Amino acid sequence: MSPSSNPSVAFQGELGAFSEMAARTYFHEGVTVVPLPGFPQIFQAVENKTCTHCIVPIENSLMGSIHENYDLLLKHNLQIVGELKLRIVHNLIVNPGTRLEDIRHIFSQPPALAQCSEFIRSLGHAEAVVDYDTAGAVKRVKKTGARDIAAIASAQAAVDYDLDILREGIENNHQNFTRFLVVARQAVEVNSEDPAKTSIVFTMENVPGALFKSLGAFALRDIDLLKIESRPLDRRPWEYTFYLDFEGHLGQDRCAQAVEHLKQLVSFLKILGSYKQGETAEGKARKKRMDP
Amino acid sequence: MSPSSNPSVAFQGELGAFSEMAARTYFHEGVTVVPLPGFPQIFQAVENKTCTHCIVPIENSLMGSIHENYDLLLKHNLQIVGELKLRIVHNLIVNPGTRLEDIRHIFSQPPALAQCSEFIRSLGHAEAVVDYDTAGAVKRVKKTGARDIAAIASAQAAVDYDLDILREGIENNHQNFTRFLVVARQAVEVNSEDPAKTSIVFTMENVPGALFKSLGAFALRDIDLLKIESRPLDRRPWEYTFYLDFEGHLGQDRCAQAVEHLKQLVSFLKILGSYKQGETAEGKARKKRMDP
Repeated sequence: MSPSSNPSVAFQGELGAFSEMAARTYFHEGVTVVPLPGFPQIFQAVENKTCTHCIVPIENSLMGSIHENYDLLLKHNLQIVGELKLRIVHNLIVNPGTRLEDIRHIFSQPPALAQCSEFIRSLGHAEAVVDYDTAGAVKRVKKTGARDIAAIASAQAAVDYDLDILREGIENNHQNFTRFLVVARQAVEVNSEDPAKTSIVFTMENVPGALFKSLGAFALRDIDLLKIESRPLDRRPWEYTFYLDFEGHLGQDRCAQAVEHLKQLVSFLKILGSYKQGETAEGKARKKRMDP
Repeated sequence: MSPSSNPSVAFQGELGAFSEMAARTYFHEGVTVVPLPGFPQIFQAVENKTCTHCIVPIENSLMGSIHENYDLLLKHNLQIVGELKLRIVHNLIVNPGTRLEDIRHIFSQPPALAQCSEFIRSLGHAEAVVDYDTAGAVKRVKKTGARDIAAIASAQAAVDYDLDILREGIENNHQNFTRFLVVARQAVEVNSEDPAKTSIVFTMENVPGALFKSLGAFALRDIDLLKIESRPLDRRPWEYTFYLDFEGHLGQDRCAQAVEHLKQLVSFLKILGSYKQGETAEGKARKKRMDP
């Protein structure tokens, strides 16, 4: 699946973040992962050639689209070259010897704490404390060596920091998937046997029938749509931004023609990339689990 | 704006939550607000006639749609009767006499902590701690009386708990709006002079051109679309759920006809309600502010 021989992949967060798990799952062996503090930095790392790729969470099945990363895709002159849907499995990670009943503080990132709220509440004796990163929380647990604290993070984080998973899959809703995009400087050619996807963003005036006409560019060519979302823009209420994914790639005439047709109808259009449609994966980390 | 004379409005959270501020801003004087712990409970309170209305956050300009509340609108046999877009202004709320440099812990709900991350980081000496509610965090600050802690919450919460606002508008991005829906048992008649909106949810098979045909029901009648979003459904990938808002109300023939037309094209359709399009508001709370 890896489009380059020695990929170096920037991701947001610390070693052990779900994004690292996504990078390792997508690229398999031989990938170098580069943790960076923020999303802007991972795009910059690809643009300035520090890394060959970055991996970007774009949409979560419970929480919707991550608008910030759509904004970064718009800002940078990069291309989406791949996709992966990762099931988000949260784990309670502790120093060896920690017992559930002794845990007083549980550290993690706000969304992870929210997604495990039922488990935390069920303990009764543990307080949730914010960290800026799930894996950063694991790092903190490791550093203190304390046996009355825990972190919520990916199984990858337990492996990276050599700690124990005390409870696995503690998220409220197990149907929790994050879609990651793999971004690079150059567009890739999509293998003609693979199911392909193209992502675009466009803006148009808010007039009746405008969106209908736009989608006609695809419907008239029997091109299937995979995602559509209008972005609420409070600053420019007379204009709409749309995120659209459609089936196929721009190497196919009908897709290239549909985009040319759409350009005639809209005020702005940017092609974010054509790529192989991503698989849904559980994530790959060597898992450690304590006996009950 | 209030459609009933003595509205009692259920909202999720503690007194002082942004939802309370939304309820007070929408209904003006004479409203009774009823805080309840979860979103399912506020829908139930309307269904079992404990309350006349509930007020529901449905979409945030930074974070996208709140899928959980779309699910509850689908589950319950209630109607959207109104809308309000509230600008989310976060405040640092403290016990009187607290100085910025003494604050060691800042309590709030995960999204609020994330939205104020730059301010918290800029302090350097304060740790963010999760509470299950912004207003609950204010309650905690009040209860302890401590002068080394603070909460992040609405100005309404400072009023409700009679505490001081030490810093106002500490959110990273001031263009942060939450759209709230007002929900009741019965549909309301929309005043013909008012700009109206109708919200529907529908499901259809994933075949090329299906969405285009569906939107034709509106485009052929010159009905403007105000929001469209496809919901990622990992469990039923062959089917799509769409959230759609269009201009107009079902008392208008062309709107009623468009929905009848759409019903012939889709596998499932639910009308969530017709209502007056909401204003954008700053929120109304009596504000207290310390002199610098």
